[in-house]
Parts: sequence; C-alpha cells; structure tokens
Amino acid sequence: MTTPAYFTRFPSIRFDRDAEGILTMALHKDGGPLTFGAAEHEAFVDAFYEVARDRANSVVILTGAGGDFIPAIDFASFGDVSDPDVWSKVHDEGTQILENIANIRVPMIFALEGRAHVHAEYGLLANLIVAGAGASFDDLPHFAGGIVPGDGVHTLWSHLVGPGRAQAMLLDPKPLSAQAAQALGVVAEVVPDGTALARAKQIARSWLTRPAVTRRNTRIHFIQPIKERLVREVGYGLALEGASAAALVKSFRAA
Amino acid sequence: MTTPAYFTRFPSIRFDRDAEGILTMALHKDGGPLTFGAAEHEAFVDAFYEVARDRANSVVILTGAGGDFIPAIDFASFGDVSDPDVWSKVHDEGTQILENIANIRVPMIFALEGRAHVHAEYGLLANLIVAGAGASFDDLPHFAGGIVPGDGVHTLWSHLVGPGRAQAMLLDPKPLSAQAAQALGVVAEVVPDGTALARAKQIARSWLTRPAVTRRNTRIHFIQPIKERLVREVGYGLALEGASAAALVKSFRAA
Amino acid sequence: MTTPAYFTRFPSIRFDRDAEGILTMALHKDGGPLTFGAAEHEAFVDAFYEVARDRANSVVILTGAGGDFIPAIDFASFGDVSDPDVWSKVHDEGTQILENIANIRVPMIFALEGRAHVHAEYGLLANLIVAGAGASFDDLPHFAGGIVPGDGVHTLWSHLVGPGRAQAMLLDPKPLSAQAAQALGVVAEVVPDGTALARAKQIARSWLTRPAVTRRNTRIHFIQPIKERLVREVGYGLALEGASAAALVKSFRAA
Amino acid sequence: MTTPAYFTRFPSIRFDRDAEGILTMALHKDGGPLTFGAAEHEAFVDAFYEVARDRANSVVILTGAGGDFIPAIDFASFGDVSDPDVWSKVHDEGTQILENIANIRVPMIFALEGRAHVHAEYGLLANLIVAGAGASFDDLPHFAGGIVPGDGVHTLWSHLVGPGRAQAMLLDPKPLSAQAAQALGVVAEVVPDGTALARAKQIARSWLTRPAVTRRNTRIHFIQPIKERLVREVGYGLALEGASAAALVKSFRAA
Amino acid sequence: MTTPAYFTRFPSIRFDRDAEGILTMALHKDGGPLTFGAAEHEAFVDAFYEVARDRANSVVILTGAGGDFIPAIDFASFGDVSDPDVWSKVHDEGTQILENIANIRVPMIFALEGRAHVHAEYGLLANLIVAGAGASFDDLPHFAGGIVPGDGVHTLWSHLVGPGRAQAMLLDPKPLSAQAAQALGVVAEVVPDGTALARAKQIARSWLTRPAVTRRNTRIHFIQPIKERLVREVGYGLALEGASAAALVKSFRAA
Amino acid sequence: MTTPAYFTRFPSIRFDRDAEGILTMALHKDGGPLTFGAAEHEAFVDAFYEVARDRANSVVILTGAGGDFIPAIDFASFGDVSDPDVWSKVHDEGTQILENIANIRVPMIFALEGRAHVHAEYGLLANLIVAGAGASFDDLPHFAGGIVPGDGVHTLWSHLVGPGRAQAMLLDPKPLSAQAAQALGVVAEVVPDGTALARAKQIARSWLTRPAVTRRNTRIHFIQPIKERLVREVGYGLALEGASAAALVKSFRAA
Repeated sequence: MTTPAYFTRFPSIRFDRDAEGILTMALHKDGGPLTFGAAEHEAFVDAFYEVARDRANSVVILTGAGGDFIPAIDFASFGDVSDPDVWSKVHDEGTQILENIANIRVPMIFALEGRAHVHAEYGLLANLIVAGAGASFDDLPHFAGGIVPGDGVHTLWSHLVGPGRAQAMLLDPKPLSAQAAQALGVVAEVVPDGTALARAKQIARSWLTRPAVTRRNTRIHFIQPIKERLVREVGYGLALEGASAAALVKSFRAA
Repeated sequence: MTTPAYFTRFPSIRFDRDAEGILTMALHKDGGPLTFGAAEHEAFVDAFYEVARDRANSVVILTGAGGDFIPAIDFASFGDVSDPDVWSKVHDEGTQILENIANIRVPMIFALEGRAHVHAEYGLLANLIVAGAGASFDDLPHFAGGIVPGDGVHTLWSHLVGPGRAQAMLLDPKPLSAQAAQALGVVAEVVPDGTALARAKQIARSWLTRPAVTRRNTRIHFIQPIKERLVREVGYGLALEGASAAALVKSFRAA
Repeated sequence: MTTPAYFTRFPSIRFDRDAEGILTMALHKDGGPLTFGAAEHEAFVDAFYEVARDRANSVVILTGAGGDFIPAIDFASFGDVSDPDVWSKVHDEGTQILENIANIRVPMIFALEGRAHVHAEYGLLANLIVAGAGASFDDLPHFAGGIVPGDGVHTLWSHLVGPGRAQAMLLDPKPLSAQAAQALGVVAEVVPDGTALARAKQIARSWLTRPAVTRRNTRIHFIQPIKERLVREVGYGLALEGASAAALVKSFRAA
Repeated sequence: MTTPAYFTRFPSIRFDRDAEGILTMALHKDGGPLTFGAAEHEAFVDAFYEVARDRANSVVILTGAGGDFIPAIDFASFGDVSDPDVWSKVHDEGTQILENIANIRVPMIFALEGRAHVHAEYGLLANLIVAGAGASFDDLPHFAGGIVPGDGVHTLWSHLVGPGRAQAMLLDPKPLSAQAAQALGVVAEVVPDGTALARAKQIARSWLTRPAVTRRNTRIHFIQPIKERLVREVGYGLALEGASAAALVKSFRAA
Repeated sequence: MTTPAYFTRFPSIRFDRDAEGILTMALHKDGGPLTFGAAEHEAFVDAFYEVARDRANSVVILTGAGGDFIPAIDFASFGDVSDPDVWSKVHDEGTQILENIANIRVPMIFALEGRAHVHAEYGLLANLIVAGAGASFDDLPHFAGGIVPGDGVHTLWSHLVGPGRAQAMLLDPKPLSAQAAQALGVVAEVVPDGTALARAKQIARSWLTRPAVTRRNTRIHFIQPIKERLVREVGYGLALEGASAAALVKSFRAA
Repeated sequence: MTTPAYFTRFPSIRFDRDAEGILTMALHKDGGPLTFGAAEHEAFVDAFYEVARDRANSVVILTGAGGDFIPAIDFASFGDVSDPDVWSKVHDEGTQILENIANIRVPMIFALEGRAHVHAEYGLLANLIVAGAGASFDDLPHFAGGIVPGDGVHTLWSHLVGPGRAQAMLLDPKPLSAQAAQALGVVAEVVPDGTALARAKQIARSWLTRPAVTRRNTRIHFIQPIKERLVREVGYGLALEGASAAALVKSFRAA
C-alpha cells in the first residue's frame, strides 16, 4: 500500500496507517497539543474529505497529540468575523467539515486523551469513543466567549446526551470528565491515560474480521440519522453564530 | 423602560421585569397556586405571544406561585369536550400555546417550586430548569383521567428523557422528584425550596454579558429541533386526544 | 368473542386472549424457546398484521416461551443470502414486520423472560417493558456474525438509549441485563423470573378502565415518531445489510 | 400457479391473474360500478394487504367495472360518524388502506375508465395511469359534502399536481377530464374508452423483461417519498376530518 | 359582532368584516397602493397574529388597495441592515409573519389586483387566488437588489410552481402575468380588473354552508405541509439573506 | 488568478475560467462527446468536490463537448456489478457525486447541447438550464437496461416535474426535447444549437454585479431542500439499484 499524498499535506495532522488499513489521524501543533485556528478550519475540510474518499482506509481513528485533543482556540486567526466575506468562508467550511466526517464510510473511533475543549463534535461523530481517565469535554469557543454554539456542537451533544443536558452544558460550559461522559453513554470505555490510542487500535483490529462491505455499510447505516440532522441544522446554526459574532465585534468596538 | 400593556392583561399571570430586561412570568390564582382551566388555556396563547414578541425582554423566567407551578386542573371549565366546536378551540389553542413558547427568542429558564403536575411541557420548553428540592413533575390530566396525553406532553418528555421513560411515565403517572429529574438530565440544578426563582435570576444575569443577538440566536438554534417536532406532532396529538375525550364523555353518558 | 382464525395459523406463535380482549402472543418452538428462522421471518409479517387489524384486541402482550424470548437464530434457514432474489424477500418482509408491529393500535407490553438476543426490536416497539430479573438483551445476528445491524435494531436501540450506547452495543454485542436496561429507561419494571407475563397482564387490566378510543389513540400518538423513523431508516438499513450478507458469502466462498 | 384464497374473499373485488403474474384487481358492485361504502372501507385494508404480500404478483393493475372506477359513495353505510368509536375505525382503516397500497412492492398501473369520483387517491398511488378518453377525476365525499378532504386525497393531488391546483380542486370539486389530467402529468396515456385495461396489460407485459428484483425495487424507490408523506399526513388528516364529520352531524341535528 | 380593537390598530391595514364573519384585510398606504417598509414588517407580525386568533373570522380575504397589492418597497426604512441588531429584528419578524399567516385557521383567499411585486408569498399562503386580468407577480427586493431571496419567497414559489421555475424567476425577476400564473396552477381564477375582491367574497360565501370546524380543519390540513417547510427553511433563509445584506452594504461603502 | 491543479487532473473534464471567476466545466472524451464509464464515476466525485471548494469560482457552468452532454454509457467498464465490493464503490461514489454538486456554493448553470441521456441529474442540480434547440433529456442506463433508476435521477426529475411525469419517463424512457422540458419548467431558455454555453456565460456575467456572499448564499438557500432530499433518498436508491444489478447479472448467467 503506497502512502497517499494527503498524508503529508496538512501541517496540523499526522497520518499513520498500518498494514491492515487502520488509519490514525492525530491533530497536533508541532507535535504537541493543537491550538485550533483558521488554518485548521480550512485544512480540515480537505483532510476529512481525503480520509473519507480513500478506500484503502479500513478503520479511522481520530486522536490528538501531546496528551490532548484540542485544548485551545486562536480566535484572532479568524480575522474580522463581522466581515460577511470572512464569515461566509467560516460558514461554508464549518458545514463541510462535519459533512465530510459524516461521509467517512468506515467505522471511526475517537481516541481521546486530555482536553476535547474545542470542536469536540469532530470526535462525537465517531462510532465509538475511548477516553483516557483524565480526559474531559468542554466548549470554550461559544457561549463562554459570547457567540452562539451553532457549528454542530449543540447538534452532536443533543443527539448523544439529550437536549436538556446539552443546553445546560453549552450555556454554562465546564469540563465534563471521561467518567461522567461514560455514565451518559458518550464514552464507551475509559482507559488509563496514555492508552486510549492503543486500545482504539485493538478494537479496530477486532473489527477487521468482518468483510469490508459490512464495515462500510454499518458506518453508513449508523451515521445516516445524524447526517440528515447535520444537513438540516448546522448551516443555519453557523449563520446564527455568524450574526452573533458580528454583534460581539460591534459590542467590542462600542466599548 | 415602560410597562407594557400585557403585564396587566392576564388575571392568572404576574409579570415582573427588572432594569436589565429579565422578565419573570408567574402563573397563579389569586396569588396562590394555579388551578389550570379553560380561561388559562385561552389566555396563555396570547400571553406567551406577547412575551415572545417583546424585544425588551432579555431573558424569560417562567415560574408559579404559592409554592407550586400548576398543581391541579379544572376539567369542568372546558365544558362539553365531546362537542366538536369546543374541542376545535382546544386544538387550536393547544397547538398555538406551545408554538408561542417555542417562539420566545431569548433564553428561557423554568424556576420550578412544588408541583408541575399539569402542563409541565410549558416549563420543559425552557433552556434550563432550576427546581426546588421538593418539586415534582407529573401528568394529571391525561391517561390517568381517561384521555390521550396528546397536547405535547409526550413530545417534550420523549425529547428530554427518551421515549421509553416518557411512555412509562405517561401511562402510569406518578410524581417524578426534582432529584430524579436531575439524574435524567431534565433539571439542571436542584436548590433549596423557595430559592429557585432567585437562582434563576442569578443565572439569567450571568447571561447578560453576551450580546443580545447571541442570546436570541442561541435560543433560536436550541429550540429549532423541538419546534419542528412540535409542529409535526402536537396538532395530530390534540386531535387524537379530542377523539378520546369524546369517547370518555360517551362512556360517562352510557354509565 | 369467537376465536379468530389467525390464532391457530402460525406454528411458532401461541395466542391467548382473555374475556377483556387482552391478547398474549407467545413466540415459541414446540412450546420451548424459539430459534428464529426464515419461516418465522415470513410468518411474523402476517401474524403482526392480523394482530394489528383485529379490533377485538384491547391490549397486546408479546412474550416468549420456555423462559426465553428469542435466544438463537438459524442462519442456514434463510438460504443463500447473496442471491438477490432471496434478499429481496428478506428486505420486504423485514421492513413490513416492523411496520406491522408499529401499526398495532392498542397499547403493547413486552413481557420479557430470559434472552432477547435476536430481534429484540420487536419487543422494543412495545409501550412498556416488564422483564424478569434474569432477562437480557443482545444482538447475535449482525455485527458479531459479519453483517450490518440494519433491520431496525439500530433504529430502536438508538431511539431508546441514544446513538452512543446503541452503536457501542451493536459493534460489540454482549448481554445487557434487565437491571441495566431499567437504568437506561428501556425496561419499566424488573420482576422475579417467571412473573413478567403475570405482571404485564396486571398492568394491561389496569388500562382497561380507559375508553377503547383512548387506548388506541394513545398508542397511535406514542408510536408515530418511531413509525416515521422506521419508514425512513429500515428499508435502507436492510438493503445495506443485504449487501454485507453478499460480501460475507463471497468471503466464505473465497476461503 | 394456484389461486390464492384472497381472490374470492372480497365481494367488491374481482381478481384475475395471468400466467406471468400480472394481477388485475377490479372494484365493482355486482359486476357494475362500485358505490363505495363502509364494507369496502373495511375490506380494502385487507385486500390491498393481501395483494402486497403475495410475491406471485408481478405487476398490479387497479381498475373498476361497468365503465367506472368509483362513481359514488354510500355515506349512510358508515353509521353515526360523530360517534368516536365509529370514527376510530374509519381513522385506523383509512390510514392503513393507503399504507397497504404504498406497500405493494411491484409496479402498479391504474387503468381508469369513467368516474374516479371517490377515493381517486387509490389510483393516484399507481406508478402509471392509463385513462379512457371519457374518464374523469373528482372528489365527491369531502368539502362538497361538508367534511375535510383529510383521507389522503389532498396529499396525493398535492404531490402530483402541486398544492395550488390541489386546493382549488378540493375546495370546489368538479370533474377533471382525462385530457386535463394528462396535461398536468397525472395521466400518462389517454386511450379510447374501454381500452384502458388492455393497454395497461400491454405496458405491464413490457416490464416483465426486467428481473423481478428490478421491478420490485423500482416501485419501492418511487413510492418511498410519498409513503413517508402519507405516514406523516394522513392520520392527522383523518382525525381532522373526523372532527368535521362530528360537527356536520351536530349541525344536522340542530337543523 | 363587536369590532375588535385590532381593526383600527394598524395604519397600513383596512379591516372589514361582514355579518357572516368574512374578513377582508386590505393592505394600503393612505388608501392607495402600499409601499412596504420597516413599519409594515413589524406591524404585520401582530396583524396576522390577531387575524389568526380571532375565531369570529370565518374566511379571510387578503387584498391590496388602489389597484395594487404591494408594488414597491422602501429599503431605506429598514436602516442599516448590516447592523446585526437591525437584522436580528428582521429575521425574527420575517419568520414570524409567515408562521402567523400559516396559523390562520380558516380558509384564506388572496384577491390580487395589480402588482404583487413585494412579499408575494403572503398571498401565496392563501388556499385560493383570484386575480384581476392585469395583475402580476414579481420579486423586486431580492436578487435584483443584490440580496438573497431568503424570506420565504423561494419556499412558496418552489412549493407552488416547482423549484426549476422558482429559481429562474427569482434569479431574473420580471412580472409574471395573472394568466401565466393561472396556467401554472397558482391562480385559480382570472377575473376582470377591479372585480377580484367581489369574486373572492362570492367564493367565501359559498364556503359558509360547511360547518365552522370543517372550514377550520380543512385549512389546517392543507397548510400543514407548507407550514412544516416554512419552519425548516425560512429562518435559515433570512439568516443567509442577512449576511448578503451586510455584504451589499460593505460593497456600497467600498464603492 | 493562478490555475488550480485540478484543472488538469481529470482526463474527461476540460476546465476553463475567465478573469471574473466564471468556471466552465466541460465533460468530454478526447474532445468529443463523453461516453460515461467507471473512470468518470470515480473521477467526478473529486472533480465536483474541487470545484465546490474553490472559492475563486464565482459561477459554475456545466456543459458537454462535441455537441452533446453525455450521450452514452459504457456499462462493461463497471465490471461485475453483482460483486458486492464493486457495488459498494458505486454506491459510495454515486451518493457522493450528487452531494458534491449540491455543495457547489455558487450559482450553477447547465448549458446543454445535444443529449443528456446519461446522468442528466448532474445538470438538473443547476439553478438554471439553458438548452440548445436540438437538445434532449433521456435515461438510458436504468429501467431500459434492467436496473432501478435509483442514483438520484428519480429524485431530481420528481423534484422538478412532479412524480407522475417522472415515473412515466423513467419507466418508459424516450427523449424529452428541450422545448418540452421548457414547457415543464425545467429548461429556462431554449437557444439555437451551439449557443447554449455563450448564453450561459452571458447570464453568469449578469449575476456578477451582486456581492459574492449574495451569490453564494442564494445557491445555498435554493439547494437546501433538494440537498436534504438527496441525503435521504439516493443512498437507499443506489442500494436498491445494486440489488437489481445483481439480479440482472444473475439472469444473464442463467440465460
């Protein structure tokens, strides 16, 4: 199996694929935890598309680096989010990222270590989540910062833990531990810190005895309801978020 | 900020709004707990509409009075519910009340004290629920009384706690404690009896640092999925409930 | 009340109806636990249809025999599932069975003893589940065996316990105890082994004080959301499952 | 191919199947045009179910007798439609009839002669309509008679000719000629009176060169959008129609 | 029947109701054709709500004045539409206006004279359209002016004439004559100029022989599919339109 | 503006972009009419994705070459379509192609010359269609060839001309002329043969006076309803088509 060009195309993603096609996709910044910025927002559209279209992948494992998934965001990198041309790009990329993850047509595991405090919904689109004991979920970029959690994070949390919990979490964001997430049915397994990826690979290998069509079609079947929901909700959510971002900039300028 | 006319229009609702636009809407009967009747069914359509359309409201808090939300219902006040003209009014009002609550486009908190034993779904449309330690949810008017729980109460419970629990609750209604509701993700905070409203106001104030557009659009985004579901389900539910009410009256007359 | 013809039409189903119309429908093989096969797949389409259309049934109780619901499956009985004509029949029957259960327009109780390890979704379409203390749910026929869980089992589990838990369960099937299912809101009551049916009958009788229209319309209202979802999801799911079955047969032949 | 039992079970339906499995299903009254009554409303539920489940049918042709499809309705046969128990039966049968037609999983042709003035929607669920030159569509039983056209007739007309035309037709019902229906895309072919069935059989035979799975799955694919819509709309429509029927009876009694 | 307060509340609407409850609602500016502005956008929310909630209305006729429906728009009256607070109001009002029209629960007729060149979708939500021979539809405010036709106008045209024609019309807006609209099934009757209202009243009167519940429930049934679609599409559409308005203002400022 | 890499990546597509970003995308085979094969099915997934993601495109024009769009298909190139692994690839690519076209977030014009007899639905996803006078639509690959028209062709035709016409066309495919398609609202303009592209460019230029955000968001708004429908229908459609292809191969082998 040759190494595809996309393996080296994205500075914030380290790809690694074993002989059986299990792809590990690690988000990072210079090998350490990723601070998410506009460059990633643009790059991840293509990255997840490439992963989704590559039939040599048998299972996809999404993870982070340096003991974290995504712990922080660089707001300034997005530029003037009150500029409609700037937000148009955010809107289009944001809807496309989630659709591209949903279109990964092989089983997907989220191997979480540390903080999934930004864009946790990427991982929530996996079919199974393995988390280190010290891991946590949070939502730093939205209501805490003054904008609408409209990029799909509400859709995914609401889908997985119900809308009551989702709203409470997003209106008063604070870390949700791996153990608490397991009790809510989000995390399938809590493992010792630093072993989530290894465990994810073990599970992935256990799935390989099934035919490729079985693996692909199982993912397709499982993802269909949330894919339909993403298509209905996320574009509007991002448009509402964009208006709130413009209002936030306006309030900063007025102050 | 002047006092809007609707503040004094509804005998069963006490409105109170602070300088920052946090509106408290307390349902009551002569200052004490509200026994819900046909007059309220008609009045609440307009009341929630007025609340929703008034852009001077920054957050809406729904609560009761006298230590209860709605503890009882006056069935007789609805008249002959087997009369198709009577039920037509119930159907039209019932669908409209829930849509009008869903159209409140600012964050909404349900400050529950005591019994939400009738039309708990009004409160379940809030984004966050704070409950006194002695509070409870129940559904007195429907299956217990011989009619279909078709007015949206099934839709809201099913949305929040899943259809298995919702059906069990509605087929064998008994009080669900605040603590149990919290464990199910319905209630965000349980506080000492008598302090739910104060805590709700505190939370409401904490949200005011966000721009108005952020607050409005967050509600819009969060409510959209359940609003779509209300529009699909409640009209039919009330029509089915109306037929069951006619059958109940028929059985009374036969007896 | 005369005995309808369908009571004696299906070798794997024992029907029993009391004077008040409470129908018990027990799946069995020669009086003992049912091993599910192609004959049942065909027969149950008609059986559930007949139950649904018979207005003399006031409540329907689904149960098993010999201390189990469905503990095992006879794969070989389905023949060559890679033959498109064979799978076309499976697809058509499979979608129709679940729609026919959903169209039972009286309250339905699942009285579970022992193993619901095959087609648990039949029981999950009940409005209430009573389970013996030693009962368990599982999914033997699908991912464990190399095919997609596309026959509605994902739809029902996802509906009842959320998609996170549903996917984890179906990708790594193992028995879920009655107690665990109760904690998840799936089972309403856990009772001593061997008493589930008696308890179900007791609950059924308690519902008979309501008018027939109330009972029917309550079921109709409660089932509508999942019925819509079944119609959207199960046909495609079975088509995806059929392709995986063909791939499995291909892999067997290659081996 | 043996003759199935359902061929002789329904007094108002004459079944005829050729050696290639093309089933002709002719609605009639004593061999002449059918006046539709409560007996047919009950019988057609089962009749279409039997047709749908019988895999020996390769194509289904629906037609009438005596030069008409259904020219008239016997309202009185339905009894006291203001009785909730009576209407409950109408509601349940009415939704089930259309679902059962939608579940016919082989191509279906409507061979129309004369008047489709009652329950035209049965024929509108075909994949292709051939009409005699003197044929016409109308809607006698609903708005003209004082009740809501809620049994699916609006859903089908709206689906086929758009909601503007559908509403105008149903609010002021008058015959729509075969030629006008062809111009609207409803009727595929207009043929000389008395030859619609022969032409339908000719078309049916032309389809038989395709594999059975192709024929079945094409129908399944084509019907899916309208089946979803029927499941969403017709139950509620019939409930609204039932309330209007009760109001009509009330007005008669008051007069 | 007393005159309700809302009859005199809105400067741009003349209400007139006959003894049988047929309400005529004429949009105007000082008795002549209405130039639509921000004041109307705000006022019509309440106006349609009041009309919808008033059970004394038996049929609602929407029309214009001075030989036109709405021939022109005063863009400047909306203020700085690139201000997120300004657009938030437009978004909220815009979605609410169409929902409130959809919630008119009696049959509605659009009596069109002259130009429906702005907000034609208000009239397109009627159940029946009668147009003067010289009448025409157009869409001045959107793509022609540089913004997205996102306020529901696409939803309604697409619903009524199909998305191919709707897109062509909205991307290259020019008047569509009453005759052309009739050929497309949008207009039910074309009458001599100046007689549309009289004809609408005549039709309205013909409907009064049906019971009130029949009239109400027929509207409810007919409007349900488009109401669901409005709830899904118009909020997002207006958000997309708002972003385009901000971009337009930006381009003006850059120029 | 530099030339993007994808302009030269696909042997069957000639890209050409003018200074204002109007992209012409011409499908061809060695400069002449394209015979569609498996290579195109794979390539077009990426091609439309690249077009959609490239924000330098201001308008996209899809056209053919040599006086045709796609006149023919090379079935054999797809290999053994009864092999589940082969069809899995067809299924995944087929759903993705249409989603990728739907995700082109700038206005799209279909400039049709000659035959759109294969995959006409690609062009039907445009916002506007300009056709040469001798152009025609047809559907060669499906029912005529013995398989289900499940790849979206039914979805698009049904969306644009209604399900009655769509079914008739697809069950008995024959060329639909540009003029007939214009009468049905599918084609916006019929122009002399050989001038469709020039006219399309002229229209595209006329749109450039609107802000980029307006153009993008208008497409997003217009495409949303059909995008939702594609996501719901095409995957299942292709799965049903795959089963029919396997049945066809089986019948060939039996013969």
